[in-house]
Amino acid sequence: MKHLIDPMDISIDELESLFKLAEEIIKNEDDFNNICSHKILATLFYEPSTRTRFSFEAAMLRLGGQVIGFSEPGSSSVMKGESIPDTIRTVGSYVDIIAMRHPKEGAPRYASYYSQVPIINAGDGGHQHPTQTLTDLLTIKRTKGQISNLTMGLCGDLKFGRTVHSLIKAMSRYENIKFILISPQELQIPEYIKMEILNKKNIPFIEVERLEDVIDKLDILYMTRVQKERFFNEADYIRLKDSYILDKEKLKLARKDLSILHPLPRVNEISYEVDEDPRACYFDQVEYGMFIRMALITKLLGVM
Amino acid sequence: MKHLIDPMDISIDELESLFKLAEEIIKNEDDFNNICSHKILATLFYEPSTRTRFSFEAAMLRLGGQVIGFSEPGSSSVMKGESIPDTIRTVGSYVDIIAMRHPKEGAPRYASYYSQVPIINAGDGGHQHPTQTLTDLLTIKRTKGQISNLTMGLCGDLKFGRTVHSLIKAMSRYENIKFILISPQELQIPEYIKMEILNKKNIPFIEVERLEDVIDKLDILYMTRVQKERFFNEADYIRLKDSYILDKEKLKLARKDLSILHPLPRVNEISYEVDEDPRACYFDQVEYGMFIRMALITKLLGVM
Amino acid sequence: MKHLIDPMDISIDELESLFKLAEEIIKNEDDFNNICSHKILATLFYEPSTRTRFSFEAAMLRLGGQVIGFSEPGSSSVMKGESIPDTIRTVGSYVDIIAMRHPKEGAPRYASYYSQVPIINAGDGGHQHPTQTLTDLLTIKRTKGQISNLTMGLCGDLKFGRTVHSLIKAMSRYENIKFILISPQELQIPEYIKMEILNKKNIPFIEVERLEDVIDKLDILYMTRVQKERFFNEADYIRLKDSYILDKEKLKLARKDLSILHPLPRVNEISYEVDEDPRACYFDQVEYGMFIRMALITKLLGVM
Repeated sequence: MKHLIDPMDISIDELESLFKLAEEIIKNEDDFNNICSHKILATLFYEPSTRTRFSFEAAMLRLGGQVIGFSEPGSSSVMKGESIPDTIRTVGSYVDIIAMRHPKEGAPRYASYYSQVPIINAGDGGHQHPTQTLTDLLTIKRTKGQISNLTMGLCGDLKFGRTVHSLIKAMSRYENIKFILISPQELQIPEYIKMEILNKKNIPFIEVERLEDVIDKLDILYMTRVQKERFFNEADYIRLKDSYILDKEKLKLARKDLSILHPLPRVNEISYEVDEDPRACYFDQVEYGMFIRMALITKLLGVM
Repeated sequence: MKHLIDPMDISIDELESLFKLAEEIIKNEDDFNNICSHKILATLFYEPSTRTRFSFEAAMLRLGGQVIGFSEPGSSSVMKGESIPDTIRTVGSYVDIIAMRHPKEGAPRYASYYSQVPIINAGDGGHQHPTQTLTDLLTIKRTKGQISNLTMGLCGDLKFGRTVHSLIKAMSRYENIKFILISPQELQIPEYIKMEILNKKNIPFIEVERLEDVIDKLDILYMTRVQKERFFNEADYIRLKDSYILDKEKLKLARKDLSILHPLPRVNEISYEVDEDPRACYFDQVEYGMFIRMALITKLLGVM
Repeated sequence: MKHLIDPMDISIDELESLFKLAEEIIKNEDDFNNICSHKILATLFYEPSTRTRFSFEAAMLRLGGQVIGFSEPGSSSVMKGESIPDTIRTVGSYVDIIAMRHPKEGAPRYASYYSQVPIINAGDGGHQHPTQTLTDLLTIKRTKGQISNLTMGLCGDLKFGRTVHSLIKAMSRYENIKFILISPQELQIPEYIKMEILNKKNIPFIEVERLEDVIDKLDILYMTRVQKERFFNEADYIRLKDSYILDKEKLKLARKDLSILHPLPRVNEISYEVDEDPRACYFDQVEYGMFIRMALITKLLGVM
């Protein structure tokens, strides 16, 4: 592993070794807090994403490293005038590793061809966001003890959510996974994922419209937002909208050992009252996001 | 003390202990330059304030800590989309302490209810700016040797200046303080401060219009800006404006041991010629601002 | 040397000592990676220049120091409201050294009069950019082994390029330098440089229109961009534009030991195919830019 561009670039073995390292860091963080000293991360954010940027920067600082970068239109416009290869070769002279966020699909891959230092894709348009997928997988592993033998519900906008697509692809490599896909009809998972991933690998899945009908069957519930604008007609929206809001009432139907995940930020799809429920894992997920980035940076820099 | 939201949240004893620590840091800065190593401060500036941000960041770096943050509309807008509780819980997973500047009154207080790490109010609209008040008090203590038995002049716009209101409240807890309030009539100190603070505690004060009439009586002169737009009529402005500009001429009337303070930035209310006068303390005040923030961060993190 | 405002402020001896230090850092970087610990650099960029800012920040971090700063309109506008002397005295209370970029000619010089800490001019309008000149000189020294006995071609817009003017002035202090000035007639080097520098010091130079006519004579080729808008008429532009693009074809005519420099960013004036040629030095130049800034910061802080 030299760069991380697509979550599927990593083999299951590399994933395991990454999770193991993340868990070591969680257990003994102090042992790692100088491991990247004198190393520099560049955060090249051609579009703003404060959460993701903070997660990378905190990860690097907690490893004893340092950070330079840009995150706002003003600065990045300067760099936009020049080609990505030139920018990457320049920045690669200054730093040891680069996290790149770009509105254009494929930009981080293209950058990696010219880079003398590791590139991490920190999100490229609607395409990939591999460290989010790693975060999701580590959260599942930590809360369920394994990433296999699980019934996973994915709820909300399953058509446009890149997070959900990447997660299904990643989970499909593990054993005995069942998916319950909960969405309005117009926001169902794309055909190509059913054909090329689920059917091809004989992974069982069902598609339903209402969360309350299936919540009692789930080990994991992965919530995402449903935007009103995505619905074809107002009537459907009014009929269904409450089905995609997780609240105390619906949670009463769920198992005691359910794990609720959400990539955040949320709007209203999880009620605040749910935050206090021990099954809510989405703030732990935020922390795991930082720890998996710490593990990833450590691996890519080859300092362990 | 878990957070610092309002300067009046701190007891006199806590203040004393904070000043003592600040003075130790001033004396032996090298002893403190690793005390926050492996700790991270987040500067969440929902409105820009470069001076205040720099003061916090320099404070944290000089203690051996690290900083992440945002300071410009581009980045902060991203965070604005989500609720303050969600942002605070997320950022609190990454860092050890947060300095928050927000255009809305009460935002830092609200944030503190949801925060697992200490929150410092770095200014919330026209409301509070407690680290400025701490800065002012430390400057008085350092230049006068004590915060009692003092005649303090406050000059300029006393109606809208939050700095001045907070300082009066804070000083009113010390012994034998007299205030001389120097302002045009339309910019006098609000009634509630006279009623609820000064009269209630029997603190002597007079209100005058012209600085030159009282400057000889002052131990401390706290200057603030008077904006033309605040005056009711042009004639008043023309008649009075020079009274709120401190220059060499007026300083001739003042005591030899006067201390001149100003929260900065200034426009023209203190002439540049005054900068060379030994009674000018406003650049020392800038430095004390950083030292008191160093002390505050150290206390809130519990590293001493 | 207390500040660096104009490249001609530095004596030849100081330059030599700076280059020597830069070469020591290149050779034994690890020996220097804590030399500025507990020191802070402020990058005050009143106009964005991400490349230059990154180079300064990486330089400081690699020396073990820390950085605060602003780089975008939002933050800097706050500081613009106050005078440069007040800003400099404030920031100088927080940090140990300042790199200042400003759209107004002379702003860094003016700042240096009021600064208690060293100021480095990181570019002031169309005027000076001394660390670029130092970068160019170090690159020449490293690639040719000396800064004397050289025939140097400068190609492109020689009229408006401050980089080129500064470099000619700086090189004119070394022995046995010949210049070949390659530009369209409307973009020739200004008269005052010919009169006051080249003629005055009896430095031989010729002016030509086409790169291909002289490339075989050059030890160094310093490329810059030619903007279409600078031409007086379309016909000239069409006739000449290809003469200012360096490609493999023209390089066939050049010496084997030519060194190609460019201050970057480039647009199309050097074809990408040239990047692989061993004579292309412009990415090494980027690295030398960081190393010379490391040496400069070290010297100005007096830590060696």
